[in-house]
Amino acid sequence: MIDKVLNLRIFTDEDDKLNNSLCDISGDILLVSQFTLYADCRKGRRPSFSGSCPPDIAAPLFDRLVADVRSAAPGQVATGEFGEEMFLDFTNWGPVTIILDSDEM
Amino acid sequence: MIDKVLNLRIFTDEDDKLNNSLCDISGDILLVSQFTLYADCRKGRRPSFSGSCPPDIAAPLFDRLVADVRSAAPGQVATGEFGEEMFLDFTNWGPVTIILDSDEM
Repeated sequence: MIDKVLNLRIFTDEDDKLNNSLCDISGDILLVSQFTLYADCRKGRRPSFSGSCPPDIAAPLFDRLVADVRSAAPGQVATGEFGEEMFLDFTNWGPVTIILDSDEM
Repeated sequence: MIDKVLNLRIFTDEDDKLNNSLCDISGDILLVSQFTLYADCRKGRRPSFSGSCPPDIAAPLFDRLVADVRSAAPGQVATGEFGEEMFLDFTNWGPVTIILDSDEM
């Protein structure tokens, strides 16, 4: 999955084509854990988060991910604070949003 | 799907619990079409967008969605420009990101 993220061709080249990966452009990366991505909203109006990993298991997994990405990424690796309430300011160019689900890879 | 989006309890109440929906807080909404969400990244390093809807079919569908949301939403409804390159500036509180896939509802 890390190899996929770092090498996926989702950045434009000089011809404005999606030919470059994060590695190609020596880009930085921001990793933020988010248990809400596992929300199950099929029933009623209240999302169920029972499919999300408990924090005591998820936090070490996230730490390992950060360490592995740091050793493989071409640029800076910033992270969110695990389990904390945050405000993430960012600019989505494109817009491009790509979902990589390890269950489907 | 519109009913689900407008009534899902994903905003905090005065006790900091996720009890309020967009309707409860009379919130505004920003709709942005994004064919990249349909990217298939399973093979190789180049995402395939062949599963995405062609623009001549997708644009009228998006217009209809915007009209339907406008007639049902409690507040302002802003939209992106269909098919245009944009920069989206926003602040993700939480962070909370929830995926609603009509194929799975």
